[in-house]
Amino acid sequence: MTHAEPDLALALDRAHVFHSWSAQGTLSPLAVQTAEGCRVTDTAGRTYLDLSSQLVNTNIGHRHPRVVAAIREQAELLPTVAPAHANLTRGLAARAIVERAPEGMSKVFFTNAGADANENAIRMARLHTGRDKVVSTYRSYHGNTGAAVVATGDWRRVPNEYARGHVHVFGPYLYRSEFWATTPEQEAERALQHLDHVIRAEGPASVAAVLLETVPGTAGVLVPPPGYLAGVREICDRYGAVLVLDEVMAGFGRTGEWFAFDGFDVRPDLITFAKGVNSGYVPAGGVVLSDEIAATFDDRVFPGGLTYSGHPLAMASVVATLEAMADEGVVDNARRIGEDVLGPGLRELTDRHAVVGEVRGLGVFWAVELVRDRATREPVDADAMARVKAGLLRRGVLPFVQDNRVHVVPPCVITPDEVREGLAVLDEVLAEVGPEVVA
Amino acid sequence: MTHAEPDLALALDRAHVFHSWSAQGTLSPLAVQTAEGCRVTDTAGRTYLDLSSQLVNTNIGHRHPRVVAAIREQAELLPTVAPAHANLTRGLAARAIVERAPEGMSKVFFTNAGADANENAIRMARLHTGRDKVVSTYRSYHGNTGAAVVATGDWRRVPNEYARGHVHVFGPYLYRSEFWATTPEQEAERALQHLDHVIRAEGPASVAAVLLETVPGTAGVLVPPPGYLAGVREICDRYGAVLVLDEVMAGFGRTGEWFAFDGFDVRPDLITFAKGVNSGYVPAGGVVLSDEIAATFDDRVFPGGLTYSGHPLAMASVVATLEAMADEGVVDNARRIGEDVLGPGLRELTDRHAVVGEVRGLGVFWAVELVRDRATREPVDADAMARVKAGLLRRGVLPFVQDNRVHVVPPCVITPDEVREGLAVLDEVLAEVGPEVVA
Ligand SMILES: Cc1ncc(COP(=O)(O)O)c(C=O)c1O
Ligand SMILES: Cc1ncc(COP(=O)(O)O)c(C=O)c1O
Repeated sequence: MTHAEPDLALALDRAHVFHSWSAQGTLSPLAVQTAEGCRVTDTAGRTYLDLSSQLVNTNIGHRHPRVVAAIREQAELLPTVAPAHANLTRGLAARAIVERAPEGMSKVFFTNAGADANENAIRMARLHTGRDKVVSTYRSYHGNTGAAVVATGDWRRVPNEYARGHVHVFGPYLYRSEFWATTPEQEAERALQHLDHVIRAEGPASVAAVLLETVPGTAGVLVPPPGYLAGVREICDRYGAVLVLDEVMAGFGRTGEWFAFDGFDVRPDLITFAKGVNSGYVPAGGVVLSDEIAATFDDRVFPGGLTYSGHPLAMASVVATLEAMADEGVVDNARRIGEDVLGPGLRELTDRHAVVGEVRGLGVFWAVELVRDRATREPVDADAMARVKAGLLRRGVLPFVQDNRVHVVPPCVITPDEVREGLAVLDEVLAEVGPEVVA
Repeated sequence: MTHAEPDLALALDRAHVFHSWSAQGTLSPLAVQTAEGCRVTDTAGRTYLDLSSQLVNTNIGHRHPRVVAAIREQAELLPTVAPAHANLTRGLAARAIVERAPEGMSKVFFTNAGADANENAIRMARLHTGRDKVVSTYRSYHGNTGAAVVATGDWRRVPNEYARGHVHVFGPYLYRSEFWATTPEQEAERALQHLDHVIRAEGPASVAAVLLETVPGTAGVLVPPPGYLAGVREICDRYGAVLVLDEVMAGFGRTGEWFAFDGFDVRPDLITFAKGVNSGYVPAGGVVLSDEIAATFDDRVFPGGLTYSGHPLAMASVVATLEAMADEGVVDNARRIGEDVLGPGLRELTDRHAVVGEVRGLGVFWAVELVRDRATREPVDADAMARVKAGLLRRGVLPFVQDNRVHVVPPCVITPDEVREGLAVLDEVLAEVGPEVVA
């Protein structure tokens, strides 16, 4: 393989490509040419260890040969078809997904990605309950379209508040507890009480759904404390609200389970997914419906849809991804990596670097939170994070940096050696930057 | 190629696939197995002439070898990459699109499809102007997500009205004029006056954008009368509103032009596109920005984005589609087919069948409107349309049926002989059903 002229990729990008979530004048992107497994190569031929999985989506790693082959074969058979027609590949993809979902969830509505999966889950919950309000958390991201971005809790919601019917609560996050809690049990209990109080204050008869990331991802890999999700389920049952679990980032291997909620004592009514379901090789997402909610639309028209719902090329990549992940034990690998190598290794960094406030996570889904002061937990500033990021890149590691955190979110296929390589680089960078930013 | 077991595709569909815009208990889908050019083959091996282009998206026809090859090659090089990185294929796709756009529009924001293209165009218009309201027409479809579905004018908006800041007007449609007009000139003039009055009544300082399909598609291929779009441009200039033209269905060859607005005396500030840009082989869409609007976000963060913005596999299919369309004269073919074969042939049907109230269109973008009575223009009922659809399918023609209309929207690569074949079948079906439904 020859490498493309490096300047052309960057020059065309600057001239013609408008980028997500950015001031366009301030960009200095890496020009990626190719990738394989956990390695990404730029147009200059430099290779990076991918600890980002891009946007936490390439769970099966880059250019997996079975998924690539399935895309090629489907492109040669039938790249696209209208959603109103039936298609075998689409049926196989739906079956492969529901086989991994709880009993009593047997239908899938396919979308193009995570945002429109959440849009449609919200629509289903509203029409199923005849109620309007959706309760979600401030520490969340659910996508950039009309309803999904207002369900989102973080700063991205604020300039986009054009949808009605959204209410936000705080979820559990013991390290920065909203509830003055000091133990996981207390954090869970108080977060549940808070959710209950907000729903009662809003009027339970107006609440269509509670929408939660099973493990809030972009907000900081906020693994819920024991009992929290089961408690949310109880609250939803008490008030007749639909529980939507957003598994867009957490699902399909990331936490070492097929669905992240499999690791918790909870069962949702609607599951939204994207990313890991096909590692993003073709844009795809969707909603898995409980049979009860699906039945609402047996005789009644479901007023939602899209041109590429159940797109054959996307569906072929779903089928191949899920088969390969099963055959190759990719989900187990993610769990073992978390338990045996990545978790212990990151905890060791906490012991070695005062700048590390907390590490938390599971599977291949971890956050390293950097603080100026362990006592006050004051986050390091953007400048410090820029230096951490630059230090990692310079040493050939592609990180996912968010606020004052390094998210360590490699593909689920990462090997213990690759993890150790990444940890060694992170260790070096924290040794370099840490002492200068700690108060 | 062997055909898949027909029952499996349908059985899996029934068991596991939740369909767009439907009551799930009432479906009887066609199981599509493969397709080529303008022909689609079902799992039983039966072949249909595709006068639907699926959802009016396969402009280049099915399984175009150059697009299939480009997908294969990109899948082998780099299927997916995060949008923050630069990528040569993405830059080439953006350049290929802006080369066909007016001067002074040099950047593209890529999305997954049409709905999120409109979401982001609305966001850009609001942030650029600092205003909230978006004016669109009742006879329109803009997608199923939060803002796009409320910008939509048709019945699909009604159960989904959760977004604020949307105002609807009537656009020109002489055959069913809202303005008691009797000539195209009068219809244009009065529709413009209506738009102007609504904007003045809403308060021009509150209007961020006017969002129009250049040629409203799903609403009935409502070709705007001369002067209308130029008049809308003037109104937008007068009040400082952004003109967004939705070219999702009308763009990239459908009307016999690269952009449908090229056939009219108008220039938009934002163009939204999807479908024809890559014939939907991989989900893709986007917004082309005027340099003035793009510059708004040079120093200011653009608060929108998505995981698969500028997805390499989608981008490779865009580059190959636009190159092949240019090399093979696909856009010219669409124009000539409309002028020489399809337009004249459909007009002949009007003369021969009392049930045809009007045919209208251009390129490969036509609607045949069926009425019980030419004098009152009363539409035929759903039952009559079901019989028309069944008659076409039985004779091996795949139609696009909407309300009381047959939309004749084949791939842009259709040959005169294929058009004549389709017209002959339509003629037969109208001869069969027409006399029984005409009052
Ligand atoms: C939890 C979660 N939900 C939804 C989304 C939105 O997905 P997309 O960007 O594919 O629309 C994301 C994207 O990061 C996510 O992490
Ligand atoms: C004019 C127009 N805009 C937007 C859309 C929405 O596109 P998508 O279904 O890809 O979201 C459509 C789909 O038919 C359309 O015709």
